[in-house]
Amino acid sequence: MITSPDNDKLKTIRKLHRRRWRDKLGLFAAEGEDLVEAAAAAGRPPRFVLRAGADVEPTLLAEVSALGSGSRVIGVYEQVFAAPGGRVMVWLHGVEDPGNVGTIVRATDALADGPVALGPACADPHSPKAVRASMGSLFARPPARADFGALPGTRLALAADAPRPLADVVGELANCPGPLVVCLGSERAGLPPDVVAGADAAARIPLRPGGPESLNVAMAAGVALYVVATRMAAHA
Amino acid sequence: MITSPDNDKLKTIRKLHRRRWRDKLGLFAAEGEDLVEAAAAAGRPPRFVLRAGADVEPTLLAEVSALGSGSRVIGVYEQVFAAPGGRVMVWLHGVEDPGNVGTIVRATDALADGPVALGPACADPHSPKAVRASMGSLFARPPARADFGALPGTRLALAADAPRPLADVVGELANCPGPLVVCLGSERAGLPPDVVAGADAAARIPLRPGGPESLNVAMAAGVALYVVATRMAAHA
Repeated sequence: MITSPDNDKLKTIRKLHRRRWRDKLGLFAAEGEDLVEAAAAAGRPPRFVLRAGADVEPTLLAEVSALGSGSRVIGVYEQVFAAPGGRVMVWLHGVEDPGNVGTIVRATDALADGPVALGPACADPHSPKAVRASMGSLFARPPARADFGALPGTRLALAADAPRPLADVVGELANCPGPLVVCLGSERAGLPPDVVAGADAAARIPLRPGGPESLNVAMAAGVALYVVATRMAAHA
Repeated sequence: MITSPDNDKLKTIRKLHRRRWRDKLGLFAAEGEDLVEAAAAAGRPPRFVLRAGADVEPTLLAEVSALGSGSRVIGVYEQVFAAPGGRVMVWLHGVEDPGNVGTIVRATDALADGPVALGPACADPHSPKAVRASMGSLFARPPARADFGALPGTRLALAADAPRPLADVVGELANCPGPLVVCLGSERAGLPPDVVAGADAAARIPLRPGGPESLNVAMAAGVALYVVATRMAAHA
């Protein structure tokens, strides 16, 4: 039973709050029984797991929680990255909110068979908020890293000012070389113009005239993946 | 220039962090220039607006921020509730996360013409996180409050275990009496069985076999509203 805040495992968890240390150690922490179970289900062994009352005094574990919710269990895992692939995957540029990155990892796992590939200036998918938002999908479907130019397959850019609606464009892409890569940019700026111009196709999600100019980026990803999944199923 | 933390306006903003005080005063706070501009664009006059450096010492304003991001402007507004209506609207049951409630308010404003109606056990749409996530749509499209039994029109229940996929069901509802009410439940429990049984139709969003059992509730709302919007446009 750990009874000192100077314990090495507690120190490691504290370090993993910060991206610099996550990058340096190649590790990350997952808080809560659901996530630790998801890791086990995905065959991802922990470096270590600490349970309140069994391995460590509950107050000491709560103190190293990054989520401020008094976690009763925290596991530490090695970071794993996948290669781009699958029939359908996602590429993100400048998505800085970790909750959005995690939510997109979850939605991609639910609706597609490929990973989420992170381009420049994205939130760390192994940050505490991203891991929590992924609801275990980070273990089941590790993220990838890729520059736009290195993406395989057919690249579909989502852009608010693209002339054509999503459903029309996706209908035409069903037989294109895979994977189909759904590309999304930051909430404020969208995808850079050279990415939109360099993509194989561009599309917008039609919104009500006079309403908001955009959807939350995670929601846009979910809508696009749903449309792609249902169109591909119709063509399968 | 306000120079004392005991100023009445600062005290009011501090009180509005808590739901009990928001309910009692019928007010809420909106932080940031974007939201204050959205309120003005929607014709919603503030009770008052405080700007750092002009009306109040910057450190004092930052201290009463509920979002911990050092807001430079905070406006206080009267709560407004709409009646259920429109061609398409949303009803929520047990959606406890304020970020999800705000994101759904934004998506509904972007994809539908009716409000988000809050049923039992939902997060306060006027909480700081919900207001921020709504990105101004809370002003453009005030929320409603309604019990399930009091909803008008045709009620479509989203349920993970519904036998029929969303697209099929929505196709049949295009000519039903409006508004079409998309009903969603909590992330953990979904809609109560009596709500699903009492709805006019039930549908699921088809997910990949072996993947996550559900989408984030805000994402599910966005996908459903997109499907409804595109089907209705096709029938218009």
